[in-house]
Amino acid sequence: MTRTIVESKTKTAIIGFDQPFCVIGERINPTGRKILAEELERGDFSRVEADALAQVAAGANILDINSGAVFSNKMAEDPRYADNNFVEPPLMKEMVQRVQAITDIPLCIDSSVPGALENGLAAAEGRPLLNSVTGEEERLELVLPLVKKYNVPVVAISNDDTGISEDPDVRFAVAKKIVERAADFGIPAHDIVVDPLVMPIGAMGTAGLQVFTLVRRLREELGVNTTCGASNISFGLPNRHGINNAFLPMAMTAGMTSAIMNPVALPIGPKKIAEKKAEVEAAGVVLPEGMDDEAFVKLFGMGSTKPRAGKEMEAIRAANFLTDNDASGNEWIKFNRVAPKAGEGRARTGRRRRG
Amino acid sequence: MTRTIVESKTKTAIIGFDQPFCVIGERINPTGRKILAEELERGDFSRVEADALAQVAAGANILDINSGAVFSNKMAEDPRYADNNFVEPPLMKEMVQRVQAITDIPLCIDSSVPGALENGLAAAEGRPLLNSVTGEEERLELVLPLVKKYNVPVVAISNDDTGISEDPDVRFAVAKKIVERAADFGIPAHDIVVDPLVMPIGAMGTAGLQVFTLVRRLREELGVNTTCGASNISFGLPNRHGINNAFLPMAMTAGMTSAIMNPVALPIGPKKIAEKKAEVEAAGVVLPEGMDDEAFVKLFGMGSTKPRAGKEMEAIRAANFLTDNDASGNEWIKFNRVAPKAGEGRARTGRRRRG
Repeated sequence: MTRTIVESKTKTAIIGFDQPFCVIGERINPTGRKILAEELERGDFSRVEADALAQVAAGANILDINSGAVFSNKMAEDPRYADNNFVEPPLMKEMVQRVQAITDIPLCIDSSVPGALENGLAAAEGRPLLNSVTGEEERLELVLPLVKKYNVPVVAISNDDTGISEDPDVRFAVAKKIVERAADFGIPAHDIVVDPLVMPIGAMGTAGLQVFTLVRRLREELGVNTTCGASNISFGLPNRHGINNAFLPMAMTAGMTSAIMNPVALPIGPKKIAEKKAEVEAAGVVLPEGMDDEAFVKLFGMGSTKPRAGKEMEAIRAANFLTDNDASGNEWIKFNRVAPKAGEGRARTGRRRRG
Repeated sequence: MTRTIVESKTKTAIIGFDQPFCVIGERINPTGRKILAEELERGDFSRVEADALAQVAAGANILDINSGAVFSNKMAEDPRYADNNFVEPPLMKEMVQRVQAITDIPLCIDSSVPGALENGLAAAEGRPLLNSVTGEEERLELVLPLVKKYNVPVVAISNDDTGISEDPDVRFAVAKKIVERAADFGIPAHDIVVDPLVMPIGAMGTAGLQVFTLVRRLREELGVNTTCGASNISFGLPNRHGINNAFLPMAMTAGMTSAIMNPVALPIGPKKIAEKKAEVEAAGVVLPEGMDDEAFVKLFGMGSTKPRAGKEMEAIRAANFLTDNDASGNEWIKFNRVAPKAGEGRARTGRRRRG
């Protein structure tokens, strides 16, 4: 039974064939999050901290910390900021320290910059997961020594110098090469978590089947744990959650043991609230004066203005139960005491259910 | 590629390894539905007809018609009604005729009474599915000749004279016996749809894994299609839909090709509406006079007072896409134009989305 051990100072997360699915929270990542990138540039880490806490509350087992920010304003003043080898190492260090100061969940150090990886490894307490190595020669030579030096597990992405192959056999071969090269460094297979790369089914109808087959082969032939950027499967499609909610249990049936994903449901924002209020008014409904947004959103079955566990977390918890990784369904029962019931828009707390 | 062909007079449903999942609607069944049983006793078939249309609208591919009614009032007047061999044959005939008169979907003739099976087979146009044979000697001897005579496919349930085994190997052996016995009658394996029997995970933690393993073996070793009473997996648990929604895609990943299930979401009834209205009033919200229930239910994100596709149908359609059984995602896109979006309580019609 392959087990990958990831640790903070005080907590252990196990990615394993005989374990509940491991959710690696992906939110702390300035790539494509302009507001977050600007805040980080100003030294404001409040959103990083809020995202850390929200993901832990939603049920993440590990938090990914990606330092890939572009500091456009500073770049204009100082050309050194155009180089991520300059920007990321100190940023990673501070992000790790900030997150570690408010939660004891194990971390995943995520960067394309070797200096940021090393700074993250040095700053993280315990045994973080490193994200990532690929089959590219330069990357192998840079990252595997770090993995060895810090004795940490690593995410291995199955692309190489020729790019990402659409042929799953090639992606398997790349993963195998990484596992073998790691072995040369004395890194065991159980410390490698392979990402077989998930293509969008909107672009490639066989993308789902490819992942399921690859995960099974990686598990049976290489004995490694697996992960993926889960939401990529539904890229470009309507009702992405509907696809993701089916994909995750299916991947788990094939043997996938973790995913890098957002465990938090999008809170209802001011725009949606304003739209709904217009609809409510048009229907001739009169709201009491001073009704607060959270009460409004709950009453009208919209969810919550606060972050909470997404539907994907329900799917994963059900699949944990269905793969016999939730003894007697205790976790399922607990989750359904505090989470919204399926098909209902409003959250029910344990107290309300019992009352 | 195993394919089981089920036909009405004009329509074909294919259960197959290379086909979208086949949903066999289970609602037309008086067992445990007291009101329906009483209506049937009075010769009122309106609910049967409404259930037929609602299930077709929700996306069922085949309609199961079960005649297992107990006519308690008639029984008091005429002791012959205590015998289901007396009650079911004419009832099955009429149910089949009534459903056939309003929809052209293929049917599944479901009874424990041989006379009802034969009456159903005689009344059904096309090539209905027969439900069911088991490994019990008496049942094999009664049902297989009917299957042969009418040249129809049959559901084979993997229990025998010793009952339902908790050992999946025994259930596999029973299925194998039925397939072999059928072969003696000249019935091919592709006309047998095996139900490996789904135990509740609340009672047996390995129940999910058992099904996945059994389905894979039945497919690979016997070359048969499979089905199950899907909702049994979540019996006795909170948030049953959450379990079912994960179970169906997982079973599909293992190779299950059909399920006997309810495709229709429970419409919101008067009791829930009254409860919600009390909550709304307590919050100080004033409703316009004469607001109708459907408008109320929609505005407050409760779903609908009308039957509509359940969340399980969303999970199945996503899994069809993910198993490459929805070319270019056309069905997924169509479904999400008319069905409620995941995580939202209200339905959006195609028109509203575009507008």
